[in-house]
Amino acid sequence: MRLPEGVEWALHSAWLLALVPDDGALPARRLAEFYDLPQPYLAKILKSLVSAGVLTAVSGPRGGFRLARVPEEISVLDIVEALEGRTQVFRCAEIRQRGPAPLTGEACRRPCGIATVMYDAETEWRAGLARSSVADLVAEAGPASIGRASAWLAQGGAAAAGQDAGGAV
Amino acid sequence: MRLPEGVEWALHSAWLLALVPDDGALPARRLAEFYDLPQPYLAKILKSLVSAGVLTAVSGPRGGFRLARVPEEISVLDIVEALEGRTQVFRCAEIRQRGPAPLTGEACRRPCGIATVMYDAETEWRAGLARSSVADLVAEAGPASIGRASAWLAQGGAAAAGQDAGGAV
Repeated sequence: MRLPEGVEWALHSAWLLALVPDDGALPARRLAEFYDLPQPYLAKILKSLVSAGVLTAVSGPRGGFRLARVPEEISVLDIVEALEGRTQVFRCAEIRQRGPAPLTGEACRRPCGIATVMYDAETEWRAGLARSSVADLVAEAGPASIGRASAWLAQGGAAAAGQDAGGAV
Repeated sequence: MRLPEGVEWALHSAWLLALVPDDGALPARRLAEFYDLPQPYLAKILKSLVSAGVLTAVSGPRGGFRLARVPEEISVLDIVEALEGRTQVFRCAEIRQRGPAPLTGEACRRPCGIATVMYDAETEWRAGLARSSVADLVAEAGPASIGRASAWLAQGGAAAAGQDAGGAV
């Protein structure tokens, strides 16, 4: 069981977008460039984040993507669920109800102990992801990390966005 | 991200094996029958559980599978990891070290905040799975569940095992 690499891309993209000053937006091309990622695949990830209300797509000459809310109000869980959905990781096919001696009726009204343990552990995983926001990720990053990203954003900001006019998003 | 259905099969199989009395063993065929599962695929799952030290394969006329340890000493995590391994669910490709402004050297000595949040949440998931043993699963099951399983085991026990002589495991 592995999370797809797009989860890492989405989290880092949100982190970088939190550093974009004022009302700026960053085109997919620039995000892909910063992390050396394949732009078409990253664009799909960004689209999922827009659909889930994590990012906003801004059209026009200075268009691109920006966080849909302040970084304090976007959790790591929001981003993971934007890509992976809220479907349970553990699948219960109720095999206790099969076979020559199936359990039925009253005994199956509540989930079996096995499914309960699996679901409870998953709830703890999601709670762990929900505890950290994008703002926390920025606060956690060292000055070297923030410095190189901010410098790169400052260098290419408006000019780079202008080049993406019309096709930025 | 979904856990394969084999995880449910393995957990229920361990639960049923905990009810096998004395030094008995249960052939794959009987386990597959009880839950109406495809025996060849279940046999692969059981083989993985043997490799991981969760089950023991017993050969001979009364052969089959049994728990390798007392149910109190086999955790749900042991069973999940027997099938899924201990590899992290989140994959960190260190994309912060890529692109036109890569983070390098001292700044990358420790995992980035993003990977840390993901790994910490996963540790909580595993801890949740480790807290419950196969004995807990049996204790949690209602009398109806234990009753129908024990009755089925008693009906077919020795005779059924005998039929599997030589090819039980």
